[in-house]
Amino acid sequence: MHSYTLTISCPDRVGIVAAVSSFVAQHGGFIVEASYHTDQESQRFFIRQEIRADSLPFSVTELRARFALLAEPFKMNWQISDSAVKKRVVILVSKQDHCLNDLLHRWRSKELEVDIPCVISNHEDLRSFVEWHGIPFHYVPMQDKPVAFAEIARLFETVQGDVMVLARFMQIIPPDLCERYAERIINIHHSFLPSFAGAKPYHQAFQRGVKLIGATCHYASAELDAGPIIEQDTMRIDHGDSAEDMVRYGRDIEKTVLARGLRYHVEDRVLACGNKTIVFR
Amino acid sequence: MHSYTLTISCPDRVGIVAAVSSFVAQHGGFIVEASYHTDQESQRFFIRQEIRADSLPFSVTELRARFALLAEPFKMNWQISDSAVKKRVVILVSKQDHCLNDLLHRWRSKELEVDIPCVISNHEDLRSFVEWHGIPFHYVPMQDKPVAFAEIARLFETVQGDVMVLARFMQIIPPDLCERYAERIINIHHSFLPSFAGAKPYHQAFQRGVKLIGATCHYASAELDAGPIIEQDTMRIDHGDSAEDMVRYGRDIEKTVLARGLRYHVEDRVLACGNKTIVFR
Amino acid sequence: MHSYTLTISCPDRVGIVAAVSSFVAQHGGFIVEASYHTDQESQRFFIRQEIRADSLPFSVTELRARFALLAEPFKMNWQISDSAVKKRVVILVSKQDHCLNDLLHRWRSKELEVDIPCVISNHEDLRSFVEWHGIPFHYVPMQDKPVAFAEIARLFETVQGDVMVLARFMQIIPPDLCERYAERIINIHHSFLPSFAGAKPYHQAFQRGVKLIGATCHYASAELDAGPIIEQDTMRIDHGDSAEDMVRYGRDIEKTVLARGLRYHVEDRVLACGNKTIVFR
Amino acid sequence: MHSYTLTISCPDRVGIVAAVSSFVAQHGGFIVEASYHTDQESQRFFIRQEIRADSLPFSVTELRARFALLAEPFKMNWQISDSAVKKRVVILVSKQDHCLNDLLHRWRSKELEVDIPCVISNHEDLRSFVEWHGIPFHYVPMQDKPVAFAEIARLFETVQGDVMVLARFMQIIPPDLCERYAERIINIHHSFLPSFAGAKPYHQAFQRGVKLIGATCHYASAELDAGPIIEQDTMRIDHGDSAEDMVRYGRDIEKTVLARGLRYHVEDRVLACGNKTIVFR
Repeated sequence: MHSYTLTISCPDRVGIVAAVSSFVAQHGGFIVEASYHTDQESQRFFIRQEIRADSLPFSVTELRARFALLAEPFKMNWQISDSAVKKRVVILVSKQDHCLNDLLHRWRSKELEVDIPCVISNHEDLRSFVEWHGIPFHYVPMQDKPVAFAEIARLFETVQGDVMVLARFMQIIPPDLCERYAERIINIHHSFLPSFAGAKPYHQAFQRGVKLIGATCHYASAELDAGPIIEQDTMRIDHGDSAEDMVRYGRDIEKTVLARGLRYHVEDRVLACGNKTIVFR
Repeated sequence: MHSYTLTISCPDRVGIVAAVSSFVAQHGGFIVEASYHTDQESQRFFIRQEIRADSLPFSVTELRARFALLAEPFKMNWQISDSAVKKRVVILVSKQDHCLNDLLHRWRSKELEVDIPCVISNHEDLRSFVEWHGIPFHYVPMQDKPVAFAEIARLFETVQGDVMVLARFMQIIPPDLCERYAERIINIHHSFLPSFAGAKPYHQAFQRGVKLIGATCHYASAELDAGPIIEQDTMRIDHGDSAEDMVRYGRDIEKTVLARGLRYHVEDRVLACGNKTIVFR
Repeated sequence: MHSYTLTISCPDRVGIVAAVSSFVAQHGGFIVEASYHTDQESQRFFIRQEIRADSLPFSVTELRARFALLAEPFKMNWQISDSAVKKRVVILVSKQDHCLNDLLHRWRSKELEVDIPCVISNHEDLRSFVEWHGIPFHYVPMQDKPVAFAEIARLFETVQGDVMVLARFMQIIPPDLCERYAERIINIHHSFLPSFAGAKPYHQAFQRGVKLIGATCHYASAELDAGPIIEQDTMRIDHGDSAEDMVRYGRDIEKTVLARGLRYHVEDRVLACGNKTIVFR
Repeated sequence: MHSYTLTISCPDRVGIVAAVSSFVAQHGGFIVEASYHTDQESQRFFIRQEIRADSLPFSVTELRARFALLAEPFKMNWQISDSAVKKRVVILVSKQDHCLNDLLHRWRSKELEVDIPCVISNHEDLRSFVEWHGIPFHYVPMQDKPVAFAEIARLFETVQGDVMVLARFMQIIPPDLCERYAERIINIHHSFLPSFAGAKPYHQAFQRGVKLIGATCHYASAELDAGPIIEQDTMRIDHGDSAEDMVRYGRDIEKTVLARGLRYHVEDRVLACGNKTIVFR
């Protein structure tokens, strides 16, 4: 179904929903899904509305022009995205390919309706698998990191990427890139953050003797593993499981959590709120 | 916080949210929480809005009178409940008291903000525990079932009960009572329905060799264990667990699932839709 | 690590563990993992022991010959498998490829240490993907079912398959094949059995209004969807999810549950006990 | 069923299971449940065996005397407990009573087969509820902490307590007490440790924006919230949940996790291994 998704963040006050709903209704707009949230701390109000495109008598350009007039007095940060325009997802990967394999399957089975203009890796190992899908594969070695990240940014800009997915990329993104692409770089960390940030989280978990392990999908931010969390999950382990077993089990959580987080993002379900996220599922 | 909760079910069409939101906004009503759902099959629309009482310039009576005018052309089934008026919950119990113990604790710790005008049982065993809470306890033996259920209905009416909770009551409620109190009798069944309806579900589960057990909170209906489901949950077991172990583990799911389902109900979060429920959490 | 896995089922009595452990110890055998279970109903005892191959002074053939002497008076059903000999897994698939994609990834990343001598399908759609892995792909159309299943059995025998995996094969295996390959055909059913056996389980689940959906990995048996359950899992859904959403979410449970079930099977962790399984995780 | 539970920890080597099993078998001992584990790091071996008391021809005293001879050459740390001698559990509580309510219910319904010789609190609030159960209640105010903890230790010794349960006691146990009663003080911490140790974990979790909350049952050790973990669990929350909602939901996890951890402990299922635990479920 062709639809427009309207997302809004603005200072909370009486009458926001009424104003937005009346605007949509007066043009015959049919709301498919609607979600609202007030953040008590910041006193900000958040909206996501999905409207059937064919219920409106004008184009998305006209919709945006008209909505801008309503948005201004409410001091809204807003965005209208068009389901006919697929998001462009650039995947970065190292050697471990379980998340890549999972995302590419969701893409080729049309479960995940995005474009994947290219995959970037610091190893050649996954070229053949990626190219079998008809997706360009770019090898960017990491010997000179500033050069490498400049090249990654150039590739991302060249293909007009909307979102960069670190699908177990195992490299720390430089703070300036995190800031330039704030809430546009999605990472999967292989622990239940904030526990076990940094390297080798499953080994840290093994040493601590926890009874559950987890994974966290979050936006990359300048501070490592500390960005806004989009999605998390955990699973039970026991004393019989070695750190290697945890690594193996963990892959199943990682790929599921990343896929869910990415889906929420590309469906405009994730709204940042300070260092937290609102996820309108 | 003193609030009014508005729940609506009506045929779907353009402009419902706009009309309702504008009505609330024009009186300065501050919406604390709002949820919407369209049921595709029945083409009906469902709303739950929670409004701060002190943001409105009139009483709940006036609110109801004014809202009735708006509701009529939309053919709305609607209800406005007032958080200042606690729901009256009558608990029916047999000998097993884990759900009763759990509910009474939530009540006395004010987690569950309801009135419990009485507890009814077909055994005397739990009288002392109930009365320690200062709650009247009525013993209704089950030798003559029609007489017993007539007495239960009489007690329920006398205390002006809003909802009857079968907290492991272990007796089948007659169909006519289920119909008279449709969506007002909440049962906890000790299986993941529709699996293992009827008697001894854990023993059925043990025989079938399932790897998870569950519990289901649902509205009682004329057909046994087939009413609209409000809440469910499952937990993992393994081959080492006997049917008795399952009974023991299951108690923890039963009490949690019942408590969640009851909370949803008394907070007007559950809207029936045919034999299904919409639960606006 | 090279190891031998000993699995035993026999009538319960005093001294079984002592006899088996003493046998292993007297040859210097180093037990890596050991699990025991008594089934109360059948009064049978079950053992799984994993022994380091390099701790024993003789070959697996000699081990089997010697163990046979011990096993006889205890009336043991027993089996010793050698980790150096990989199980041969034949995968049957239709058009939906999420389970296939998942299993092939686990295979090519060496997470699942098995041989996959071929993939069989009643559609040509997945040929290219399977052949990219260097695995033979056999197209067996289903127009004439007896002919088709005879061909499937022939292929399975030709490649000396140990286990047949129905990775969303969507065809009912004839009872005689189920019996010939008892506990050697693994199916993934897309519901939490025994709920919603048969066709379109997610649509059945949607109609019933359940609050969790699930998947079940089980041995195929003559009665449809009624064989011994190996593994199950569930996930939460809500009223906002359509039957199509459930199909999508469900794929994630299906592939994980099938992969876990298959792993347990190929590691000789699953022992049948009537229509139930013991899974020594 | 009357049984003896044997737990052993010793350096790993060939023949331990054979020696122990043969010892039991030669006296006709019927093993009800047996679990084994090797800790790779410390190269230590762990055993738990539950033996039917009526299958042995002598008393537990004689069993211990005979087993001591076997244990010595293997350098075993071992213990044999008798199910006829109930563990004595002293519960410490502050004002929040959800864990206490839960534990007392399990005790009075005989789900948890222990003795509760007394409950100790730094507030008078729960006296009536505890005394209704016929359990002595001791009020120990916390104004002078050294005096208070000396009194707690005295009470614990007087009633010959086996294990002290901090059922949301909200007071930091002095390091010397933690050491004196190593692995005998069980705490419930209201977060998924190691995340959010210390005060107000739900508020920490709310600030960080995690998508799951949890609880941890662990042995108290000199370092706060850093002792060996016995059991943990998590549950899903979302952006709509306030810190107060988390506190409320969290109570359900806390009481379940504490009850499971305590059960494992009193059934001798928990063996310490450095700062980790082996839990033979």
